[in-house]
Amino acid sequence: MNFTEKTKDSKDIFSGRIIKVRVDTVELPDGRESTREIVEHSGAVAVLAVDDKKNLIMVRQYRKPLERVLLEIPAGTLERDEEPLLCAQRELEEETGFLAEKWDYLLSYYSAPGFCDEQLHLYIAQGLKTGVARPDGDEFLETVAVPIEEAYDMIFQGHIIDGKSIIGIQYVYNLMVER
Amino acid sequence: MNFTEKTKDSKDIFSGRIIKVRVDTVELPDGRESTREIVEHSGAVAVLAVDDKKNLIMVRQYRKPLERVLLEIPAGTLERDEEPLLCAQRELEEETGFLAEKWDYLLSYYSAPGFCDEQLHLYIAQGLKTGVARPDGDEFLETVAVPIEEAYDMIFQGHIIDGKSIIGIQYVYNLMVER
Repeated sequence: MNFTEKTKDSKDIFSGRIIKVRVDTVELPDGRESTREIVEHSGAVAVLAVDDKKNLIMVRQYRKPLERVLLEIPAGTLERDEEPLLCAQRELEEETGFLAEKWDYLLSYYSAPGFCDEQLHLYIAQGLKTGVARPDGDEFLETVAVPIEEAYDMIFQGHIIDGKSIIGIQYVYNLMVER
Repeated sequence: MNFTEKTKDSKDIFSGRIIKVRVDTVELPDGRESTREIVEHSGAVAVLAVDDKKNLIMVRQYRKPLERVLLEIPAGTLERDEEPLLCAQRELEEETGFLAEKWDYLLSYYSAPGFCDEQLHLYIAQGLKTGVARPDGDEFLETVAVPIEEAYDMIFQGHIIDGKSIIGIQYVYNLMVER
């Protein structure tokens, strides 16, 4: 079955620093028309940085859309055409002050494919050593080291509520914690 | 440390069927100003429906933002003030034709907290029986039953690339698959 929705018209709504918004008029598979509201995003990276004691390096950060501080894995927005691994390495050092000797690609996924094209690329960083933290001018962060098992439990206690962090923590828990 | 970003001004950009967009001018913790582009969404539910043979009920659906068909767990947008569990039960039957005898709440999370307030509520549905599929008028879906172990492998092969599905599949794999 062919589910393709052909674009009949596309209207640009907004062009900001982080997102663009457009509304597409589409032809549905049955020939009728509908509209799709679409948020465009250049993509992002996130890093599971694990130290020698199986602590996960995380950051506390105020998230304006939720009006609260969230505990998340380090992450950042891709510049146009930026190589995701280089972006991940840059963001980890900028946000937490850590460099890593060993980098592994984990997976890429879409955060909200129903209305947004944001793709996230997840990496695992090990062999941590100290670099120089220098957050962006509008970023205020606090770095914390959380044992992987504790981070895993915090998901189901409702203390870690950020999608990329939940995906990554479940993965490193299965990989690194003996049961 | 207080990370709160006080709202100095807020400008409505767009109000659609699924999302609203606004730009807030904020005062940063150091007193300087910045802007935050924010997508408002009424929230959504997603369902891990597992049958007696440990198959996960999934749907193939065209996602306009990505211009491709994705394999995802059944999900749907909350109506304003709708009770998430009732929405999950409705969406499972509408999208897949399945009813379930046993419903368990798993967790809630934010899909993209950097720029969007969408919160997703995940449920596990078991004891499946046949109801009546009746997708929304602009939804074209194909239901497939995927063994949980196979779904788990598909995450790391890049065949399942939807955030809510990756979160939920990792959870039911740890819960239900013997290793």
